[in-house]
Amino acid sequence: MRELKQYAAIYRDELLDSVIPFWEQNSIDEKYGGYFTCLDRTGKVFDTDKFMWLQGREVYVFSLLYNQVEKKQTWLDMALQGAEFMKKYGRDAAGNWYFSLTREGKPIVQPYNIFSDCFAAMAFGELCKATGNPEHKQIAVDTYFNIIRKQNHPKGIYNKLYPGTRPLKSFALPMILSNLSLILEDVLEEGTAGKLLKPLISEILNVFYQKDSGLILENVLSDGNFCDCFEGRQINPGHTIEATWFLMDVGVRLNDAALIQKASEIMLNAVNYGWDEKYGGIFYFKDIKNYPPQQLEWDQKLWWVHVETLIALAKGYRLTGQETFKQWFLTIHDYTWNHFKDREYPEWFGYLNRQGEPLVTLKGGKWKGCFHVPRGLYQVWKTLEINK
Amino acid sequence: MRELKQYAAIYRDELLDSVIPFWEQNSIDEKYGGYFTCLDRTGKVFDTDKFMWLQGREVYVFSLLYNQVEKKQTWLDMALQGAEFMKKYGRDAAGNWYFSLTREGKPIVQPYNIFSDCFAAMAFGELCKATGNPEHKQIAVDTYFNIIRKQNHPKGIYNKLYPGTRPLKSFALPMILSNLSLILEDVLEEGTAGKLLKPLISEILNVFYQKDSGLILENVLSDGNFCDCFEGRQINPGHTIEATWFLMDVGVRLNDAALIQKASEIMLNAVNYGWDEKYGGIFYFKDIKNYPPQQLEWDQKLWWVHVETLIALAKGYRLTGQETFKQWFLTIHDYTWNHFKDREYPEWFGYLNRQGEPLVTLKGGKWKGCFHVPRGLYQVWKTLEINK
Repeated sequence: MRELKQYAAIYRDELLDSVIPFWEQNSIDEKYGGYFTCLDRTGKVFDTDKFMWLQGREVYVFSLLYNQVEKKQTWLDMALQGAEFMKKYGRDAAGNWYFSLTREGKPIVQPYNIFSDCFAAMAFGELCKATGNPEHKQIAVDTYFNIIRKQNHPKGIYNKLYPGTRPLKSFALPMILSNLSLILEDVLEEGTAGKLLKPLISEILNVFYQKDSGLILENVLSDGNFCDCFEGRQINPGHTIEATWFLMDVGVRLNDAALIQKASEIMLNAVNYGWDEKYGGIFYFKDIKNYPPQQLEWDQKLWWVHVETLIALAKGYRLTGQETFKQWFLTIHDYTWNHFKDREYPEWFGYLNRQGEPLVTLKGGKWKGCFHVPRGLYQVWKTLEINK
Repeated sequence: MRELKQYAAIYRDELLDSVIPFWEQNSIDEKYGGYFTCLDRTGKVFDTDKFMWLQGREVYVFSLLYNQVEKKQTWLDMALQGAEFMKKYGRDAAGNWYFSLTREGKPIVQPYNIFSDCFAAMAFGELCKATGNPEHKQIAVDTYFNIIRKQNHPKGIYNKLYPGTRPLKSFALPMILSNLSLILEDVLEEGTAGKLLKPLISEILNVFYQKDSGLILENVLSDGNFCDCFEGRQINPGHTIEATWFLMDVGVRLNDAALIQKASEIMLNAVNYGWDEKYGGIFYFKDIKNYPPQQLEWDQKLWWVHVETLIALAKGYRLTGQETFKQWFLTIHDYTWNHFKDREYPEWFGYLNRQGEPLVTLKGGKWKGCFHVPRGLYQVWKTLEINK
């Protein structure tokens, strides 16, 4: 059996020698500010729209590297490259973050999507720890409280559901808030984030987590009941797994061994449930009743699913010492490095078909940016480095 | 070389002996009215939501059969089964058609989507020719004019685009209106539909059709220019091909040989462009600049694309006599019957992966209902029957 600790260097080297230089070299828009994220296999820009999720996420990654790895001025400059653009053009008059902007910064898609706010808060929350700039801090704090205000009606006027018939609530928001609250804990007034964490965890474990199946549902009725419709039956194994390492981090923070144990159990359930016995890799979507999922891409293998699984397994192994996490880590590691890593050009493929072949060869697009791969490489590196 | 006329009987038999009985046997909701459309491979209901596109389309198909094939009371009853439910529960106070309802008829998704209106108009337009019921006629007429009123802002308050930055218009609406106007011609006051047809055709050929590539773009800027963004670069070969048989029908109606010629040329371009040289079948989406399409399902093979292509090729051959249409018809016929037709249970698979294997085995769902397969079988049957 291979020792996991020896893998730390592979993840570090891939991060610092390949992936980060790729974004440094290809994603800066010198003319209008911000980042290009639509990059082809070689790193060439193929579309210049600026998607706010990805602007925020790249600011976060470079701020994190600066804060946690090394105080390199070029990394801080990279973070500011996105932050300045976001600050100038990213919000509407009420402080909501647009979904996308033109290259020049004109709004294209309205703030219908609260995750633009989440990633903006994450960006400025991590950035202000690097810059100490009160303006950055204020943007993080204002955005965070705006999210909290909007959390029960996250789509606002763009919500297409008829009021009252079938009010659904989605796992995505409590899930991301559990991560965001940890990132912003030192930025917010003492106790603010902590006060939020317990009800979030309780909602995840008592509402979205299903005791019978051991899985997490993406959407439930607002009273917490199962909804037998396409959205209600939906399982997103990668999403569940990503959430479990957020929960493990919260467990460490709150010194809550039971939470860590529970999160690692759920993670294992989702890995087993999502694994494709025939071709390997983890499915994108499944239906809890085994009906046809509505997403036609259900059987595809996505980079973020596998990267997040590696993080969760590394943390699970470190925190619980269970051998099964180590074995699964090695399995997912082999699948991921054999299929997602591009051997010819830097950065990783994002989208594979069920068989494991690239479906598109882009390195960045509307949804894939400088985020899951570098964050994952960083998290796995740091987790394994201190592993037994 | 096989003669096409001999194929007419195959399409007729599949329609009348297999596909139509499948919907008659499986889609009636005896308890609450309307149709079930989410049917598994064997015909068993797996979800009871009522999607208005599919309610309207099934009413249309049974009305069409009654009007054009045989005055069977059971077919008229089938049409009324959906029409009564739609009439009772389908519209908001302003006459807009909801996107979906619960099994019982309570609205779930608001009327954000003008195609619900289009298929409702199509349903009641065809139905009123069967029933002669003035109420059915009035619903068709009112809905048609509501669509015309809304055509420049089809998503209404649910439009997520920031006003002014990048106003796009979509090919789907003029395309479907060219078909709908023909269906409703005898229902509307004389000249109403005809008056609309010429500007629609002009918009399709002068705005969405691109002379240089010979292809149709799904979205252009409202001034008619190309927009170099994901939506602007999108080509949907099946959509283009479906439109070309609508245009051929309009050409026949207006006695416009040049339009028929042009439509058949565009159809051939799209078939050539969409064909997958490696695995056969027609791709779902492509990017006109060969960049990665944003739709992850781009390489899948969809039933409606292939059924609509068979109609267009049959009509193209009949109207122009060009051998190339006959050859392509035989190629697409073989692909379609070998891959989409289920040899074990009635009705056809809807979604294949690139390799041609079923991705999900449902016979009906949120988007696939009693429509493209039966309409296509009917159209091909009738077209080939009188072919040379």
